[in-house]
Parts: sequence; structure tokens; C-alpha cells
Amino acid sequence: MTTPERRFVISFGCPDRTGIVARIATFLAEHGGWIVEAGYHTDPDTGWFFTRQEVRADSLPFGVDELRRRFAEVAAELDGRADWRVWDTGERRRVVILVSREGHCLHDLLGRIRSGELDVDLCAVVGNHPDLGPITEAHGVPFHHVPFGKDPAAKAEAFDEVRSLVDAHEPNAIVLARFMQVLPPELCEAWAGRAINIHHSFLPSFAGARPYHQAYERGVKLIGATCHYVTAELDAGPIIEQDVIRVDHTDAVGDMVRKGRDIEKVVLARGLRSHLQGRVLVHGRRTVVF
Amino acid sequence: MTTPERRFVISFGCPDRTGIVARIATFLAEHGGWIVEAGYHTDPDTGWFFTRQEVRADSLPFGVDELRRRFAEVAAELDGRADWRVWDTGERRRVVILVSREGHCLHDLLGRIRSGELDVDLCAVVGNHPDLGPITEAHGVPFHHVPFGKDPAAKAEAFDEVRSLVDAHEPNAIVLARFMQVLPPELCEAWAGRAINIHHSFLPSFAGARPYHQAYERGVKLIGATCHYVTAELDAGPIIEQDVIRVDHTDAVGDMVRKGRDIEKVVLARGLRSHLQGRVLVHGRRTVVF
Amino acid sequence: MTTPERRFVISFGCPDRTGIVARIATFLAEHGGWIVEAGYHTDPDTGWFFTRQEVRADSLPFGVDELRRRFAEVAAELDGRADWRVWDTGERRRVVILVSREGHCLHDLLGRIRSGELDVDLCAVVGNHPDLGPITEAHGVPFHHVPFGKDPAAKAEAFDEVRSLVDAHEPNAIVLARFMQVLPPELCEAWAGRAINIHHSFLPSFAGARPYHQAYERGVKLIGATCHYVTAELDAGPIIEQDVIRVDHTDAVGDMVRKGRDIEKVVLARGLRSHLQGRVLVHGRRTVVF
Amino acid sequence: MTTPERRFVISFGCPDRTGIVARIATFLAEHGGWIVEAGYHTDPDTGWFFTRQEVRADSLPFGVDELRRRFAEVAAELDGRADWRVWDTGERRRVVILVSREGHCLHDLLGRIRSGELDVDLCAVVGNHPDLGPITEAHGVPFHHVPFGKDPAAKAEAFDEVRSLVDAHEPNAIVLARFMQVLPPELCEAWAGRAINIHHSFLPSFAGARPYHQAYERGVKLIGATCHYVTAELDAGPIIEQDVIRVDHTDAVGDMVRKGRDIEKVVLARGLRSHLQGRVLVHGRRTVVF
Repeated sequence: MTTPERRFVISFGCPDRTGIVARIATFLAEHGGWIVEAGYHTDPDTGWFFTRQEVRADSLPFGVDELRRRFAEVAAELDGRADWRVWDTGERRRVVILVSREGHCLHDLLGRIRSGELDVDLCAVVGNHPDLGPITEAHGVPFHHVPFGKDPAAKAEAFDEVRSLVDAHEPNAIVLARFMQVLPPELCEAWAGRAINIHHSFLPSFAGARPYHQAYERGVKLIGATCHYVTAELDAGPIIEQDVIRVDHTDAVGDMVRKGRDIEKVVLARGLRSHLQGRVLVHGRRTVVF
Repeated sequence: MTTPERRFVISFGCPDRTGIVARIATFLAEHGGWIVEAGYHTDPDTGWFFTRQEVRADSLPFGVDELRRRFAEVAAELDGRADWRVWDTGERRRVVILVSREGHCLHDLLGRIRSGELDVDLCAVVGNHPDLGPITEAHGVPFHHVPFGKDPAAKAEAFDEVRSLVDAHEPNAIVLARFMQVLPPELCEAWAGRAINIHHSFLPSFAGARPYHQAYERGVKLIGATCHYVTAELDAGPIIEQDVIRVDHTDAVGDMVRKGRDIEKVVLARGLRSHLQGRVLVHGRRTVVF
Repeated sequence: MTTPERRFVISFGCPDRTGIVARIATFLAEHGGWIVEAGYHTDPDTGWFFTRQEVRADSLPFGVDELRRRFAEVAAELDGRADWRVWDTGERRRVVILVSREGHCLHDLLGRIRSGELDVDLCAVVGNHPDLGPITEAHGVPFHHVPFGKDPAAKAEAFDEVRSLVDAHEPNAIVLARFMQVLPPELCEAWAGRAINIHHSFLPSFAGARPYHQAYERGVKLIGATCHYVTAELDAGPIIEQDVIRVDHTDAVGDMVRKGRDIEKVVLARGLRSHLQGRVLVHGRRTVVF
Repeated sequence: MTTPERRFVISFGCPDRTGIVARIATFLAEHGGWIVEAGYHTDPDTGWFFTRQEVRADSLPFGVDELRRRFAEVAAELDGRADWRVWDTGERRRVVILVSREGHCLHDLLGRIRSGELDVDLCAVVGNHPDLGPITEAHGVPFHHVPFGKDPAAKAEAFDEVRSLVDAHEPNAIVLARFMQVLPPELCEAWAGRAINIHHSFLPSFAGARPYHQAYERGVKLIGATCHYVTAELDAGPIIEQDVIRVDHTDAVGDMVRKGRDIEKVVLARGLRSHLQGRVLVHGRRTVVF
């Protein structure tokens, strides 16, 4: 793996009007900014404009802090409602993973990190069951077992502990890798835009529990998985990525579970990658994924 | 196109037990029956056994009527609850198509019939709008325009006329090719197992009206289509075939409609083909598609 | 179908350097140009920069001719080697289709044109067999039958006639819709960048004759189709679009032919659409498809 | 994971004729054999008949050795050229994996074994580089590093050592999980029908070295992977499974490598699963995968 060159990534959204592209492009050009990748999109319904641009860090005469300061002026000038972010790919992304018993997504992410494909700091794995501790630690990553009681008070306490463990790392992404507990509303809010779930169905079909059983009952010919941001409404957050795989009458629920796992793994990995690279811009209930 | 050799197709279902395969296979072997294609399946949940077998017509010393008579004895001996059918591929399949204004599925089916890919007698096309009459007639197929009033009485009258037009042909399949009227329960019952609908979503997501708008609102990353048998419960009949296509944030509703049409056409054509070849065995809400 | 608003489409390519995006965006902004869709790409290997931009026609104070004149100056200033084009979506695209005997691609395109999905002037269909004449004429499109002899002189003469028939319409696209004759080099050159072929395999596998037979022999588990620009080297032109479909051991060559047709139709339609909308920028042997 | 019930799996192939299905089914029925899954296929080209049947072990009054003895008589009676096998799912499958430096396929297989999805004895991993030793050993599996010299003699010696290490386990499958050495003909022969390779292209396109670079050069719009049996002719053995993923002009070679890995992993896992369950029947250069 060669290290990719360092880049500054600008993402920006505001109500569309003439001249936005020109203003941003001119700002970058004035300082010699070499745009390596650029995406633009206007939502025809809401009239909202989105852009994401990657600039070679060595093409600008200043660092990321100065870029942020200067770009803030450009953004303010363009529109007071602008929503923007500047990220330096030299700042490594921090990730915490939450798990229960099923390990396929965790195994997959650990493999991707180990092979260098997913170049992040995996700060910790937190599990409400101890099962996935040994494999996590074999990869040199701290594992925290937080048992979840069944009564509300015990659950609330467990969530408090999870929150402390997670927040200590100020992670850029909190990944619910088949974590079988519903996040309380206050955590959904605290981690808004950072908590990413993989749901084992092609949402909005089969939200909630036992989606493969639901799929089997309904007799669908494809099953899927959905990677989405966690919001207070269960399985209803903005969708980042989805995919499906074909099944037929020979597939019992157990076969669907097995085939579905391959989709869950890859959909989560793709969604997480897009999120960490700042490619996902959320607007209402939909996402723009550059 | 070479004419495929004539075959007798046996489909059979009953509660599973030891010896069913042997009994049917022995019956066929005793008469020299050459099995060209055979499918077997047992549903692990219901314990129901399904089979479909194609036998070369020229390998048996008798015709389809005698085969039916003799197989009836085998079936009765195996299980009183057995559900079976014998079909001679020499009997051409009759199809009637119901349409409204949107022509992509009709165009597609006409093209498949003209090129010989779909080897059926298209007896008639019935439309509640006149728009698709000219192209239908250009293919030499009778077109009947049955206007649908808005009040219940006018609708009921129109459905009576549709039913007469359809039933006159005793069709093996009644295809709702983007027919924008909900069949009344008595027609669902009269045409049970023969009325096939194409719904423009990946069911059970987005049942009912304007599924592409629903899909757009929800921000899904794949859209799909579903071919299913029509039952009294709207968009809830047994699914024969489904497929999907990828969309992203650059696709407005109009783009989804356009991309979706390609999936609707192919899903309907595949589902209809399976139905006409006797490959679809319905059991409760699910299908076995051999 | 609502008529989409009229747009001017600029496509542009030149060696990459700082400031290109800014220059073009500033040029447009100075005249009030409202960018509705914009794509940018730099090929990391060749260092070539590509962009395609759609501007609302009513946002500029001048027409397409003046835009061409003014943009020529911008392009010249940016790089003498720049390759660019300005197209007015108000100018309808002209298409000629070449066919032999197999009609599935022609049927499909005729259906798309009739339903308004493909909004083009289909000027003529030319066939080296008469079979597809009636359906073409039923759609109100002129059909020309040009018989092809077997000896080289007769072939050359036939190609001369085809060329005259085609060139009379100055078409934006010449579509080889399963046209079973290899274009001579001089036609490949005359129609470079406008002649589009659909090959019934996932190229570069199975170039040349009888690709489904080749696929069957090799025992592949997916078959495909490729839409590409025609060049003098057979089946080796720049690829615009490809797709595949799953097959298995139960699929004989005839089944592959049937399943493959559904892929051919959709791949050709997608490729042609991209071409006609000016979304395909060719660079060497590869394409950028915005 | 519940342990699936024990089954005897019969696979059988011979020239097709009337009565084969009946003979086998009757043999099983006579002994009370409960057929849980059955596949039948006749290759129309070669007239070869294939079947695979799973029988509940507890439905027969004897064990696998007696079943083998008795079925041998049935097979001999049906056709002297019959090729058949009887396998007891109670006999655990043994696997050895060969690797070089790239770990994604190995990580994936280790994860599947650990989670119980792939229920095999992974006897050993052999690498011509030491890189993947630690993760292998963290999973409690022996790792053997066999350095490969560059001159032919050193290579031959290394292959002798690999062969000894592998053959000591009498494995049912030898998996080349991105093993970057070409097996010598004598090993291809010794391991015929057991050595499984994953090639990182959609064969027959891009056989040999650096397939993603070849794919990039050719400008294809889909990349793929192929799981096949190893034969003496490089990348030309019978194909077990293939799949593809979409790429576009924004994907540099490095992106293709990354996206392709997800396909390689899943194609290898599916192919290996089919092989180990005795679902793959090879005939000439093609496979039947039940």
C-alpha cells in the first residue's frame, strides 16, 4: 500500500444560486489549490446545493487551520445558512465499534484494518457480550465488556458506561456492527451523524427484529442490507448504502442469514468508508454520497 | 428459432414422506418416460414436497390424456391431498394483457412475442385508455378499449365488460401490464393463480400508489420491481420474481421512473415465462419457482 | 412526460493544471450561467482533465452560437490542445439504426422512442435483410433494405449504399443494433465517435463470432453485453457500458441467447442515451461517462 | 448455530438413458431413505446425466460404508462408465490454505471458520512469505513458512516441501488464497479436483498477471473474480463460481484492487462451500453446481 498524498477535503451545502461553483473554485485557484476530485449536486426538490472537493495539501501555501479560517469567510459570504466542513486527510480517523455476539461484521472490519485497506485508528470495541473479546484483542485492540441487564435501570446504567467508553475517544464514527441493543434517544442525539448502523434487510422492508424471518415469510426473491445513520426513529435514519443478493425457494432462513452476512459486511464497509472520507452529506432524510 | 421438442410437464405437491420420488420415477420408467428436466423441493417449515418433471412426449406410448388418467392414480395413491397438474407443451398458451396508458411493458411483451422468444397466443389487449391501441393493432392483435368511469357503478360495469372480454379466451395468463385499476375481489378469485401483476417497487417496500415517489422520499439506494400473483389484498400476493437497479442522489423521481421501467419489463417477462411453463408452484404466500 | 428545460451542455478536456475549474466557472458566472449539473475528472495516469457541465439556457443572455464563440476563447486560453464541444439540448438528436435479422434491440429502441423515453429523431433503419421492415414502418420510420452480396465487390457496393443512406441524415449516432456485418475501415473512420455497436459478450472475453457459444464452451457463470464505439479493430473500441446476467449449468446455448438479449437491450439503450446526452468523453481506449 | 442433521450425499454421473432416476430412487426407497435434497441435470451436448442427492442418515438402516457397498452395485448396473461418490456429512472436511502476502482472502476464511459459518478443519496455512503467520496463529491454526527461491531448483524444492506439508493432512480442499506461485504440472495432477484457485478477474478476460491493470487499460465497466479448479493450463480450469462489481472512470487501479477484493472473498467462499458440500460435478471443462 502506498500512502496516498495528503489532501484537504471541503464539503459544503447551501441553497443553490448562480456563482457558487465559481466563488469556491476561484478562492482555491487564487491560492494555487489543485483540485483532485470534485463533486457537485443540486437537489431539484429542495433546491439545496452540495459540493465536495479534494485539494492537494501541498498545492496550498497554508495549512488546514488557515484554510478553515479563510474558507469560513467564503462560506459566510455565499450564504449564512451554509453548512460546511474542512478535513485534512493527514488527521487519522478514530473509530469505535459496538458489538453483541455475531462476529461477521467485526471480523470483516478487523481484516480490512489489518490489511491496510481501511486506514483508521480502531480505538476500542465495546460488547454487551464477551464473545468477541479474544479475536479483538488478538488484533491488538482493547475490548470492553459491558453487560446489559434486562430492567430499564440496568440498561440505562450500561448505556452510560458505553457512552463514557466511546466518548473518551472522540471518535469520528461509532459503528453498530450487529449491536443488538436500541440506542436511547439521548445517545442518538449525542452521536448524530456519527453513529452508523448495519441493518440486515433492504429497508424500509423488514425494519425491526428478525428481518430474515420476515423476508422468508413474505417469500421475497432478494434479500439485502442497509447501512444508515442512527436516529431516534428505529431503522429510519438516512441511508448511506444498500445492496441485495438473490435467494430462492431452496433457501431456508438459515441460508438467508448466511448469504445475507456477505451483504451486511460489504454494505457496512462501503458505508463506513464513505462516511470516513467525508463523502456523505445528509439533507433531511436523504443522503448525497459523492 | 428451432421448435423445441414436445414435452409433457408434470407438477405435483403433497406432504413429504419417503418414496414419493421413487413412485413417480418408477411410474415414468415403466412406460419408458425419458425425464429431460426434474426439480424437487421440500419446504422445511411446512413439510410440503414439490416436484416438476419434463418428459419427452415421444418417449411415452400414450398421449397427454392417458398420462393424466394414469398419473391421477399415482397421485391418489401417494396422498389424497396431492395437488397436481399435467401439461402438454404442444398446447399453446393463451394470454390476455390489460393496460392503461404506460406502454413500456406492452411494447416489451409485443417485441418478445414477435421475435418468437415468447411463444404464446396473445388473444387480446384490453385498455381502460385508448392510447395503446394503434401499436397493439400494428402487431395484428385485437385491442379493446373499455373506458372506466369514476363512480363505483360505472367501474363495476367496466370490470364486467373486461371480464367478459378476458374470459372469452379462457387464457392461461391475464397480465396486468401497468394496468392502473385495482381488481375487485371477485375477479381476483375468478382469476386466482392466473392474474399476474407487475408492481413498480421491490415489495413489500412501497406498496400502493406512486412507489417511485415513495422510494425517492425514503432515499433508498436501489429501486426494484416485483411480479406477483394478484390476490384480494393489494400488492400482497405470492411473489414470482423481483429485481433491482442501483440509483443515487443524482436520480430525480423521473430518472427512477425511467430506470425502473427496464427492471419492470424484464421482471414481468421472466415471471410470465415461468408461469406459462408451469414452473411456479404456489404454497400459501410463497412460491417455488423451478 | 414533461419537456425538460432547455440546457447548454459543455464538455471539455485538456491536460490538467490549477485553475481550470475556476476559469470555466467564472466565465459562466460572469454571464449569470446557472450550472444544473457538473462533472469533473482527472485521469491519474495521463493527467488529462475532463469536465461536462449543463447550464440552464435561459440563465445566459445569449444563444448557443454566441456561447460557442465565447467559450472557444476560454478554451484556447486554457490550453491549445483542449478538446471541447457545446451542445444545445434544444437541437434534437438524429439517429440511424443498422440491423440484420435479429429484432430484439430494434424493438426495444422503437418502444423507447414511442413512449417518449428516448427523445430523438429516428431518421431511418437500414437492414441487410428485409425482415425488420414491417415493424419499422408500423412505427412510421423509413426502412431501407440493402442486400449484401458475398463477394468483396458486392459487399463494398452495399456498404457504399449504406453510407449514402446514413450520411444523408447527418446523424449524431449510427447504432449497429445486432448488425451482422463488419464495417470497413473507411466507414469506421468516417463515423468515428458516432458509430455505436452492441456486442453480445462481456468484452474483452469472447470477441468475434458466436460469443454465447464461446461462453457456453468455457463454462462461465455470468454472460454479458458491451456497448462500445466502433473502431477499425473488431470489438476493441472504447467501452461505453457493460452489464452481465447470471447463468448456470441448466442454461443451454439457447437459454444464454435469450437471457443475453435482455442485457444487450438495456446496455445498448443506456450507452446510446449517454452518448446522445454528450456524457461520454473518449480518451485513448477508455471512456469517461459523466 | 444448530448442528444440521447428518446426511449421506450421493453424487453420480453417467450417460443419460431412461430409468436412472427411477433406479436410484427405488434403491433409496427400498431402504426407507428420506431424500432431503435432490438435483438432476442432463447436459444436452454430451448427453451426460448428473445427480446429487442428500439422504437423512438416520432414515437408512445402515451406515455410510454399507451404503457405499450397496450403491456401488446400483451404479455398476446402471453404467460401467458411471462416476460416483458417497459422502457422510458426519466426516469433517479438511482444508489447507496456501497464501503469499495478500491477506484479505485468508482473513475472510478465518472469520467464516471462527463464526461457524464454514464448518471445517483448517489443518494448516502454508505461506511463501511469513507475513500472514501471526493472524493465522492467533486463530489457533499452524502456519508454515516455506520460502521460495527464484531459480528453478530452489522453487522445485520449495514445492516439494509444500506438497509434503499439504499431503500430510490428506485435505479435501487445497485453497490457493491469492497464492502467487504457479503450481507445477505434477502438483496440478496430484491435487486434481481438490486444488481451488481464486483469480482476480472475470475469466477468460485478463488471465495471467496483473488482471486489474489489464482491466484498467481496457476500460471495462465491471471487474470480477473467478473461483476455479487448478489445472496445468494457467487460469483455464473448470469454473466453479464468478461474480462482478461495477467500476467507472473514477476508479484508478488501486480502487479496482480494493473493490475487487470484496468480490474475490465472496466468490472464493461460495466456491469453496460448494466444493466441500460435494455440489460441484466436473465434466470436461465445465461444472455442474447443484
